[in-house]
Amino acid sequence: MRAARYLGGGVIEVGGAESLAPRADEVTIRVAYNGICGTDLHIVQGHMDARVATPAVIGHEMSGVVDAVGEGVDDLKAGQPVTVMPLRWCGECASCRAGHQHICQRLDFVGIDSPGALQELWTVPASLVVPLPEGVSLQHAALVEPLAVAVHDVRRSRLAAGETAVVIGGGPIGQLIAVVARATGADVILAEPDAARRGFAEQQGAVVVDPVGEDLAAVVEERTGGAGADVVFEVAGTRGTALDATRHARTRGRVVFVAIHPEPVPVDLHRVFWRELEVLGARVYEREDFEHAVRLLAEGSVPADALITRVVPLDETMTAFDDLLSAAAMKILVDVQGGTR
Amino acid sequence: MRAARYLGGGVIEVGGAESLAPRADEVTIRVAYNGICGTDLHIVQGHMDARVATPAVIGHEMSGVVDAVGEGVDDLKAGQPVTVMPLRWCGECASCRAGHQHICQRLDFVGIDSPGALQELWTVPASLVVPLPEGVSLQHAALVEPLAVAVHDVRRSRLAAGETAVVIGGGPIGQLIAVVARATGADVILAEPDAARRGFAEQQGAVVVDPVGEDLAAVVEERTGGAGADVVFEVAGTRGTALDATRHARTRGRVVFVAIHPEPVPVDLHRVFWRELEVLGARVYEREDFEHAVRLLAEGSVPADALITRVVPLDETMTAFDDLLSAAAMKILVDVQGGTR
Ligand SMILES: [Zn+2]
Ligand SMILES: [Zn+2]
Ligand SMILES: [Zn+2]
Ligand SMILES: [Zn+2]
Repeated sequence: MRAARYLGGGVIEVGGAESLAPRADEVTIRVAYNGICGTDLHIVQGHMDARVATPAVIGHEMSGVVDAVGEGVDDLKAGQPVTVMPLRWCGECASCRAGHQHICQRLDFVGIDSPGALQELWTVPASLVVPLPEGVSLQHAALVEPLAVAVHDVRRSRLAAGETAVVIGGGPIGQLIAVVARATGADVILAEPDAARRGFAEQQGAVVVDPVGEDLAAVVEERTGGAGADVVFEVAGTRGTALDATRHARTRGRVVFVAIHPEPVPVDLHRVFWRELEVLGARVYEREDFEHAVRLLAEGSVPADALITRVVPLDETMTAFDDLLSAAAMKILVDVQGGTR
Repeated sequence: MRAARYLGGGVIEVGGAESLAPRADEVTIRVAYNGICGTDLHIVQGHMDARVATPAVIGHEMSGVVDAVGEGVDDLKAGQPVTVMPLRWCGECASCRAGHQHICQRLDFVGIDSPGALQELWTVPASLVVPLPEGVSLQHAALVEPLAVAVHDVRRSRLAAGETAVVIGGGPIGQLIAVVARATGADVILAEPDAARRGFAEQQGAVVVDPVGEDLAAVVEERTGGAGADVVFEVAGTRGTALDATRHARTRGRVVFVAIHPEPVPVDLHRVFWRELEVLGARVYEREDFEHAVRLLAEGSVPADALITRVVPLDETMTAFDDLLSAAAMKILVDVQGGTR
């Protein structure tokens, strides 16, 4: 079988690899599609070399079909379409014992800390496998993982139908948060400087604001009768948007910092105090978020085709990374079984 | 009657004043004691001159006895011991309409934005008056307002019996938060560089840490089996403590920023994300916090005598301010009816 491997130094190489037969409680999956996300870009740019042991098969947004199951796996069978929730936890640390396994203090994020899905045959613990219902195509199912991130963010915010959410940043995760918020019955105001991304959000029913030329605060105030938004999602990840995010929330509103700020950044704690805000961290997802994401795709609540900018064969994995770095693509999927076109 | 007036320029003058007869729905109180707090210090240092119209009678931590009631006031009568919750709201703004009157967008903080309690006879709306039960002395009752702040902070944190709270900063509010947390049944770790203040907290059953020579993080870790604290209260208000506060909370822990940071300060949003923390703002109190504070005093859960460093007569109000600025006093009360000693 073949695999795409990150070798370090910005290089991905596609070549032959050995497949692992499933041991007890494991499943081997014939990977269909693998989406490339911001974390993968960080890896290939060398930002995570301290964490990623090269050569590394990366990839964690995938879909596929069960190829073989190991001993003791009774609830999955060959031919079944599946996706994988790429988290392995220790079960013993304080976070795990408190029931927050997705924040395990020794979390193995599969596809970063251990081999990922950019290979034709991928063997994982059966407990990570999430079966797909009929009606979810394998291309769409490669969106389950990033969609689960958005579902988790929205769940953490306790966003309810009829509430107003502000989403700052219209990249893939911002768009998915807007989609989930709309599916929850909320009004969505999305701020994004890129016109094409604004257009995308508008088609999904969001009110869009160009933060460069327009006054987001004024729009939020006008649309909420002066109260402010119930929930603000900071997805852009700049110092400016982090500072600004608290400004748009109503009294007792919730602000979810979705974007990752590696270094401490200034936060308007006076506003947090003045309006008794609630600032929430959200990290990956739990099993119920994954299952909710699958349901949203199955019921057609997600504009999956529009989100998939392009599909490239495994041999062109490296060009997919280059394209994502240079252009404002939403999602590029790698057709892992596909040859060169 | 006499009153203490802030004249601007760091000066308080005590002199004759006119008392106002209670109009309909008002009550005139013969003020017994008035505690001086950090906000009053800020006012007299001139930091709030833009907000405070001089000459100003300040003071908002008080106790007294009803002197006369206006028309329509049926539930209060002359001679009754009372305190005052010093908030007046508009009832019409978005915060008020949402039921968060204590965050009214046009809030009148009585004693800052309108005349306060440093006068022998004080006339206020009857709706602000909180009756005192038997067994709460008038000196102790002057602590109700700052205690209500602590009660509100602890309620916002959802601290529960058996949980561990870290309190960073052992000034009056930090100590009161520790007292309320202990009364809630929580374990308390209080960090404070001043030895006398550490001694005070220790007597109230807190584990104390000197942040200068000791490693607070190590103590928290050791006492929580490596998990981190359920709740962290940041009361010290420095850039260092604001940055550090998130470090001590467990996965899904709550961090309450009690101290006021007028300017944005760096916050470790990566830690907020990594442990899915909840950062909460807390502002003044609601009626139920005031009533809870009265109950805590009545049942003897608060070391009120120990908290009152000194009582000075009205004529010495200015020296009380000077002492608070120069020494580490906890609470100094002004005996508003007292002459020069
Ligand atoms: Zn991803
Ligand atoms: Zn664990
Ligand atoms: Zn005060
Ligand atoms: Zn109001």
